[in-house]
Amino acid sequence: MNHESLNRRDALRLLAFATAAGAIPQSLRAAETNDSAKIQKPLHIHPQQQLRMGSEQIAILVYPEFTALDALGPHYFLAGMMGATVRFVAKTLDPVPCEGASRGGFCVKPHLTFADCPEQLDLLLVPGGLTGTFAAIEDKATINFLKSRAAKTKLVGSVCTGSLVLGAAGLLKGRKATSHWQTLEVLKDVGAIPVAERIVFDGTDRVTAAGVSAGLDLGLELVRRYRGDFYAKGIQLLGEYDPQPPFPTGGNPKTADKLVVDMLNGMHAPIVEKFRTTILRLANKHH
Amino acid sequence: MNHESLNRRDALRLLAFATAAGAIPQSLRAAETNDSAKIQKPLHIHPQQQLRMGSEQIAILVYPEFTALDALGPHYFLAGMMGATVRFVAKTLDPVPCEGASRGGFCVKPHLTFADCPEQLDLLLVPGGLTGTFAAIEDKATINFLKSRAAKTKLVGSVCTGSLVLGAAGLLKGRKATSHWQTLEVLKDVGAIPVAERIVFDGTDRVTAAGVSAGLDLGLELVRRYRGDFYAKGIQLLGEYDPQPPFPTGGNPKTADKLVVDMLNGMHAPIVEKFRTTILRLANKHH
Repeated sequence: MNHESLNRRDALRLLAFATAAGAIPQSLRAAETNDSAKIQKPLHIHPQQQLRMGSEQIAILVYPEFTALDALGPHYFLAGMMGATVRFVAKTLDPVPCEGASRGGFCVKPHLTFADCPEQLDLLLVPGGLTGTFAAIEDKATINFLKSRAAKTKLVGSVCTGSLVLGAAGLLKGRKATSHWQTLEVLKDVGAIPVAERIVFDGTDRVTAAGVSAGLDLGLELVRRYRGDFYAKGIQLLGEYDPQPPFPTGGNPKTADKLVVDMLNGMHAPIVEKFRTTILRLANKHH
Repeated sequence: MNHESLNRRDALRLLAFATAAGAIPQSLRAAETNDSAKIQKPLHIHPQQQLRMGSEQIAILVYPEFTALDALGPHYFLAGMMGATVRFVAKTLDPVPCEGASRGGFCVKPHLTFADCPEQLDLLLVPGGLTGTFAAIEDKATINFLKSRAAKTKLVGSVCTGSLVLGAAGLLKGRKATSHWQTLEVLKDVGAIPVAERIVFDGTDRVTAAGVSAGLDLGLELVRRYRGDFYAKGIQLLGEYDPQPPFPTGGNPKTADKLVVDMLNGMHAPIVEKFRTTILRLANKHH
């Protein structure tokens, strides 16, 4: 293989990567793809740093009042994978309002209904929420969809209280899992083993992420596993993911200001209790 | 003031905080607000740690194909501020598709049209994007809206390439500003002074954040400035914002793998060039 052809191939791969990441406007794509010489400096990429391609089938479950950032964090990174198909799945194709968006705000136009969703997925991801998540746990169609797809899906995952939806579907029995820090103990009620970590893999077929913003780290870690370090680094730098929270230790209950932890625990005791009673009531109904 | 009344007031404030953050389901709100005794342990909060209330008027501009995470990152944190009004504003009330969502995915239902948007805002925030951002820069109605509101808005801000929209509206002349790292130098073409930092305040009336995920840090920093440390810490812990990117130094071009920086620079040279030529062409048209 001569040097020029390697450069041209790499250039095309880079363009493919950029196109997939939505980084190259439609209007520029045709011209660039036909004329890779427009890339001023051909890049000499070491073989192990070449972009690994794939064709992952990814579905993200959405239900009314789910927390938008739970889904959008991982979606941003996963949708950057060239060749992957990342789709939202819901009970119907009607727009699904995110938490607080009933009068205006973020909503999702699903690509697929439960019925149309492929049988075999690489990844099926469930976001969390509050009111909406109680309803999802109680919704037979949602739970049956998760049960039916889980058997053939390579990796079933969740962000935040999405883990309780997986649990209600019986998908975390005997599994190590995490959840929003305030609902970690509720995982025991679905037979899971709570682990207070940001991302918890159990075997190759389950992954759970902690509260809300943990979905960003999950998304990028999944890109790393699917496509390797070089690809993941590319997407991380594209999203300039160099987080600098104003309180470096404030996002983790182990290190946060104890008064803040106590305040949130005081506030959310009724919610945690409602998750627990809902799950136990449904579990008893099935026995 | 006796001790009991302080506790009761604090309990109600906490509930208000939780309600605003979307943390208390509608079904629980009425009961809880009428019976603060349900909070099992009354919290003894030191005066300087009480939750500071406010009534900020916040608008987030949206336009077709903006990057969802640019807007949703700050939105998650800002919407957690009890008493604040956080609304999406667009040219019309039609749903606005986020980048890549033309066939399915995230969209925004605007609350307000340009015409209906209040004259006096505390914060007006502009997200970035690629194709959609070129179009926004060229759109007279969008630029005129920004010009008209900027004079009376206390703080005008942006995330990612949203800074170039502000710049095209003449709002960053002589101002220190940041942008997505790859478009930082383009800020000079709108008369701004590029600063390679994650969040850049210029005076009290301008703030710009770096690429995509920098919007999360901006959102939380704004909560801190509007409501104080204790409030911001509460929302940070609620969103479990304890970021752990797989490559700790990978999100910043100064510290990232140089091959990755070069790859993205190679890929995006045409985009950066298009931003520059679009802005210069429009600037010349006005002279």
